Amino acid sequence: MSTSTPNLESTASSAHATVLAGNLELTVSRAELLRELTAAQSVVERKTTIPILSNFLFEATTDGEVGRLTITATDLDQSLRTSCAAKVKKAGACTIPARKLYDYIKLLPEGEISIKLMDNHWVQIRAGRSNTKMVGMARANFPQVPEFPTSGSFRISVPSLKGMISKTIFAISNEESRYTLNGALLVLKAESMAMVATDGHRLAHVEKLGETLEGISGEKKTLIPRKALSELSSLLSSTEADTLDFADDDQTLFFKVGGRVLTSRKLTGQFPNYEAVLPRDNNKFVIVRSEDLMGCIQRVAQFADERSGAIKIRLEQNELKLSSSSTDAGESEDTIETPYNYDPLVVGFNSQYLIDFLKAIGTQGEVRLEFKDAQSAGQMRPEDGNEDVKYRYILMPMRI
Amino acid sequence: MSTSTPNLESTASSAHATVLAGNLELTVSRAELLRELTAAQSVVERKTTIPILSNFLFEATTDGEVGRLTITATDLDQSLRTSCAAKVKKAGACTIPARKLYDYIKLLPEGEISIKLMDNHWVQIRAGRSNTKMVGMARANFPQVPEFPTSGSFRISVPSLKGMISKTIFAISNEESRYTLNGALLVLKAESMAMVATDGHRLAHVEKLGETLEGISGEKKTLIPRKALSELSSLLSSTEADTLDFADDDQTLFFKVGGRVLTSRKLTGQFPNYEAVLPRDNNKFVIVRSEDLMGCIQRVAQFADERSGAIKIRLEQNELKLSSSSTDAGESEDTIETPYNYDPLVVGFNSQYLIDFLKAIGTQGEVRLEFKDAQSAGQMRPEDGNEDVKYRYILMPMRI
Repeated sequence: MSTSTPNLESTASSAHATVLAGNLELTVSRAELLRELTAAQSVVERKTTIPILSNFLFEATTDGEVGRLTITATDLDQSLRTSCAAKVKKAGACTIPARKLYDYIKLLPEGEISIKLMDNHWVQIRAGRSNTKMVGMARANFPQVPEFPTSGSFRISVPSLKGMISKTIFAISNEESRYTLNGALLVLKAESMAMVATDGHRLAHVEKLGETLEGISGEKKTLIPRKALSELSSLLSSTEADTLDFADDDQTLFFKVGGRVLTSRKLTGQFPNYEAVLPRDNNKFVIVRSEDLMGCIQRVAQFADERSGAIKIRLEQNELKLSSSSTDAGESEDTIETPYNYDPLVVGFNSQYLIDFLKAIGTQGEVRLEFKDAQSAGQMRPEDGNEDVKYRYILMPMRI
Repeated sequence: MSTSTPNLESTASSAHATVLAGNLELTVSRAELLRELTAAQSVVERKTTIPILSNFLFEATTDGEVGRLTITATDLDQSLRTSCAAKVKKAGACTIPARKLYDYIKLLPEGEISIKLMDNHWVQIRAGRSNTKMVGMARANFPQVPEFPTSGSFRISVPSLKGMISKTIFAISNEESRYTLNGALLVLKAESMAMVATDGHRLAHVEKLGETLEGISGEKKTLIPRKALSELSSLLSSTEADTLDFADDDQTLFFKVGGRVLTSRKLTGQFPNYEAVLPRDNNKFVIVRSEDLMGCIQRVAQFADERSGAIKIRLEQNELKLSSSSTDAGESEDTIETPYNYDPLVVGFNSQYLIDFLKAIGTQGEVRLEFKDAQSAGQMRPEDGNEDVKYRYILMPMRI
């Protein structure tokens, strides 16, 4: 049959497989391996119907004397490629169940770990007097992962991008159906960058001035999916690098952070014209300590209607009152004294949305609340005197 | 109708209600209130079909100048009664939704809190510029809670009992149907006490010598339900008292720890004759460091059959080998060098049961494993030279 009468195609593919699979055999430090597995494992889907996606791809290569182990994880939407130094006895590749391997390596004591590809895709892992064989899968089944483009990338400041993600990611929509709201828009200009996210009920917008982005003319807008932002955020937290490289092609976004490359499939579609909703004439405002406001909102929110989470903000002569009531739980009111000399105003907001913003700015400083009337969007800003970071949060009012 | 023509019964009951409900009004320190609510809230069932059981009973009393707030929680099986100092303006009683109150008090800043019973069982809670009204229920609906007996109690050492609970509670059966195994047996004697728990597959037994238990003649055996042990354990952890008072009547167990009284409905039925299963001739043994054994078992357990959790212990000349295999995950083996000069032996155990015991003894010292053969129960003991605490753990073998 086909095995006894090989045609050109099967010969070609088996030759290909040999080159790719080789006979991987290497030794690696447990600390370095664990560090890279920790970075890569969050990309692996826990519940996937495609078995190979539960695996890491391990590739061992040598460049002269220097050996390297490259680890790849993907869920088809995203991929992460990272690597560490290794003593490579035999170059090659294999795949290993990601979760099992990660858990096992965590349980091993510090020291050298040797990894060796055996027959039938089994992988042997030895360390000290521990000896384990894990059931792997053929390397040929592991999907192709996009390569970082050789040209056309932009260098971005790590702390700036990290700050922008944490200031906007919580406002991204959770509704899968609102496709273009399932990400945040990154806007790069030659001397600034901005990020904006909205779920249709609130919008977070942050702009960082005083950046130098080489190669940008005009503005470059990129919609980054929430999952990629969240991966990126943990990559940025664990790197010591000051900058990352960002690139994209028709289908994929690429982020190179230290030696790690994260890719994400692009979201297609048009992000809403957010500039139209930014309030221009919210001329009534109060300034309060973030910590005080957070405390009041959290207390009052306990007695808000469970479904809507709505609480009432009432501004009167030098007083900010927060209140709520629900038929089941009761009613609650909290008052903050603060200068206010405009017309009285009563407006309702989702308490969780208010809390989200206060969490993002922290409870150290002061926050400014700006209103027009009960029917118009409110705006919140940190009152921190930071001229370089313009951060604003817009909330639609609720009828209460 | 009945309201316009009161009979003796309704008059009596409404007079009774007045006495009980009064018009509670008091002030209490937030720190003290929160401390007692924290102790009491764990007894409140999260999901109960009887609304009043979601509430705390608050009772304000005065004794001369001294005011006191007593807080009671019950799920009908258990109850906890605790109290703190309060400035009582009006003695009385009310009930307040437990979870809501606890969450709200946690969110209040430090300071004085005033609590006042309003019309329709609403309860007003004021602190600083926070003002809340919670929907309570009639005090009369709150179930009667058993009172600590006026005589016949025993004084027990807090650290001794706490140690015994943590050494046995994990071996209690989770199977609701095995009614008499859903608790641990406390055995009090004049000069020792012991606790034993089993689920039919493993048994934990601890005996503490050198105790002085006044009023005990012969031995007093009491079956304590797991839920009560777990409540008791947290009461013992948060008390500064050296001793607790223990009593029982036909239906109820009573534990008085500091100012708090925990009651629990008794488990009926006969605890198995555990003394018959204690191994007498396990004459093959090894001693290993607990930390080493824990590491090996945790690693090897990763590759055990998921349903049974079985791993294999193999004893050979100066060597303890642990191994496992599963069709899905692969196979794993770990070796510890340790003196062993008896006949070789292979026996299977549930890895989780082994881990439970190692967690209970901690990973500081050494552990002794005693065997007879592959068909007989194994025994584990801490090798800590502590003559006062005799702790043993018996495990049934598994066919592997």
